[in-house]
Amino acid sequence: MTTHSIARLEAFAVALYRAVGMDADKAATVARLQVLTDAMGRRTHGLAMAPLYLADSRKGGLRVSGSQAIVSDNGVSAVWDGDYLPGLWLVNEAIQTLIPRAEKSGIAAIAIRKSHHIGCLAALAKQAADRGFVALIANSDPAGQRVAPYGGTEALFTPDPFAVGYPGAEHPVLVDICASITTTSMTRQKLAAGEQFEHAWLLDAQGRPTRDPAVLEHSTPRGSRQLIGGSEYGHKGFGLALMIEALSQGLSGHGRKDAPQRWGGNTFVQVIDPKLFAGADAFDEQMDQFSDRCRSNRPVDPARPVRVPGDQAARSIALAHAEGVGYDAATWTALETWARDLKVALPTALSPKEAR
Amino acid sequence: MTTHSIARLEAFAVALYRAVGMDADKAATVARLQVLTDAMGRRTHGLAMAPLYLADSRKGGLRVSGSQAIVSDNGVSAVWDGDYLPGLWLVNEAIQTLIPRAEKSGIAAIAIRKSHHIGCLAALAKQAADRGFVALIANSDPAGQRVAPYGGTEALFTPDPFAVGYPGAEHPVLVDICASITTTSMTRQKLAAGEQFEHAWLLDAQGRPTRDPAVLEHSTPRGSRQLIGGSEYGHKGFGLALMIEALSQGLSGHGRKDAPQRWGGNTFVQVIDPKLFAGADAFDEQMDQFSDRCRSNRPVDPARPVRVPGDQAARSIALAHAEGVGYDAATWTALETWARDLKVALPTALSPKEAR
Repeated sequence: MTTHSIARLEAFAVALYRAVGMDADKAATVARLQVLTDAMGRRTHGLAMAPLYLADSRKGGLRVSGSQAIVSDNGVSAVWDGDYLPGLWLVNEAIQTLIPRAEKSGIAAIAIRKSHHIGCLAALAKQAADRGFVALIANSDPAGQRVAPYGGTEALFTPDPFAVGYPGAEHPVLVDICASITTTSMTRQKLAAGEQFEHAWLLDAQGRPTRDPAVLEHSTPRGSRQLIGGSEYGHKGFGLALMIEALSQGLSGHGRKDAPQRWGGNTFVQVIDPKLFAGADAFDEQMDQFSDRCRSNRPVDPARPVRVPGDQAARSIALAHAEGVGYDAATWTALETWARDLKVALPTALSPKEAR
Repeated sequence: MTTHSIARLEAFAVALYRAVGMDADKAATVARLQVLTDAMGRRTHGLAMAPLYLADSRKGGLRVSGSQAIVSDNGVSAVWDGDYLPGLWLVNEAIQTLIPRAEKSGIAAIAIRKSHHIGCLAALAKQAADRGFVALIANSDPAGQRVAPYGGTEALFTPDPFAVGYPGAEHPVLVDICASITTTSMTRQKLAAGEQFEHAWLLDAQGRPTRDPAVLEHSTPRGSRQLIGGSEYGHKGFGLALMIEALSQGLSGHGRKDAPQRWGGNTFVQVIDPKLFAGADAFDEQMDQFSDRCRSNRPVDPARPVRVPGDQAARSIALAHAEGVGYDAATWTALETWARDLKVALPTALSPKEAR
């Protein structure tokens, strides 16, 4: 596994996206956030997505140029039509638009319809949390059907991810969860590796719990992913999914009713400014002490201290800056193939001397 | 089990609260929402709470008169100090305050600190959803320690309930979940009945999963409640808890750092007006079709069709209006004891003729 510096990986990704005609601002944001995602350790959603995005731009699925349409805007909340521009760029634009609004009103939100795929919500929430704001991001793809409602057997909605970010003493707290136990990328990884899940996190087409990822991709009729809580208390995961569907599709006015076939995503983004509530100091004092009390909680396993979400990402980012980011053979080969095709130079590998 | 009409139960509860000096507006709201909670079928959080509230008002824990202090207010978002006034009244006041704000800005939110106990969040979310609004309510009690962080053994935070309500064709969708698998009331019920939980939803003080509710009330050191996801993926429940703690304590500027000893609750309440996003019709069309597709999803068990959260509550309410609400012996005896003590007349039982 060769490793590469963050700066060179970003430049490489920018060159790939520019080579398929992506606007410079969009290429820069998507490249920066995908490499950040890899640096955070979420390899399924970083540059591993680039070959899929490049292929979809060629097929006309991902739009690489233009700007979003404003459907409605009252100065605090708004609806955007993203017309399948890159999801990372759209949501980042929304966050940058919402921050000055939150500084006036305490809260501000944008519902985006018809975005292309988003990627790692935690990397986006970090864009607000690093600047002292709370971010809530809820995302669903009305074209995807992978999870059944609680008690049902027919896949109807997406895993429906949801992220929360807020400032912390050393680094932000970054929660990134979804309404199903496991994700689409994880299922595909298991299937490619010929592995079973450790637990029965899937359902076959009859609704029987199973560890076999083949029920999702190779069976007819297809199975589905179990909701958080599974058969015991899956109404909790279902409730979370309903919230995410309502915020991202109900409020944006576009969703499963329109039966879109194009790979995409609808997103609800909200930014909150603690300064306009009880003050940034009050927020930090409460939440930093709470995080510290979590970290010092006596662990079940003495070898595994309690971590606050975002702790591991911060350590990974520091390591990536010091030692670069490496990719597995499958991911790197796919990127090399696209680089050859698009006549983009590969980044120079990080020499042992360069790696601090 | 004798049953009583909703109107008589409300009048009875108002009389009990008035007898301990509660302001008329607060008594009316608390009584109405507690009886609604019972009618919805959430018996642990309806009039069963009244004896606890009456006792706490005598001890000076629940404040029965006065009004909240405005800590900050910018016209869209605000912070209130509830000074331990009844939680149902405070949150209902917040919803009534937020609705006209959401009609202007699309979204509006209030963080309430130092409320007394709230009760059923779904009954509150219904107050906004019945009028066409989306409600998000997150609640925690900084004086309670019942759930440990993921991977930890020491109870640090509360089950942290969270509700979402939004309008539906026949009745609103009402999601009411919490970050732990089971709740405080459910644990006490099991303990009182001498029963074990069906699944290992608790942890003993060493962090070992257990079905025995005694680990929470009768053990030293005490155990804790498992987070949603348990040992397999409890980071999801932990993430939800962090969001709820940040919204309800971080934004209100009061929390575990202040180590309050008084029974209470901090609440973040947000109201969203779909009319100010893509429109009420667009919201309804998307979400009603989605609800219908959930209900018609082929069930795992043919005898148990898929239900959307709120369906069962709507059926229960209709039944309660037709046939009245009955209480178990323990709940009714406790209410009778307080009625005698406070010289409040018991409601007349519903005669078979009255029940339609």
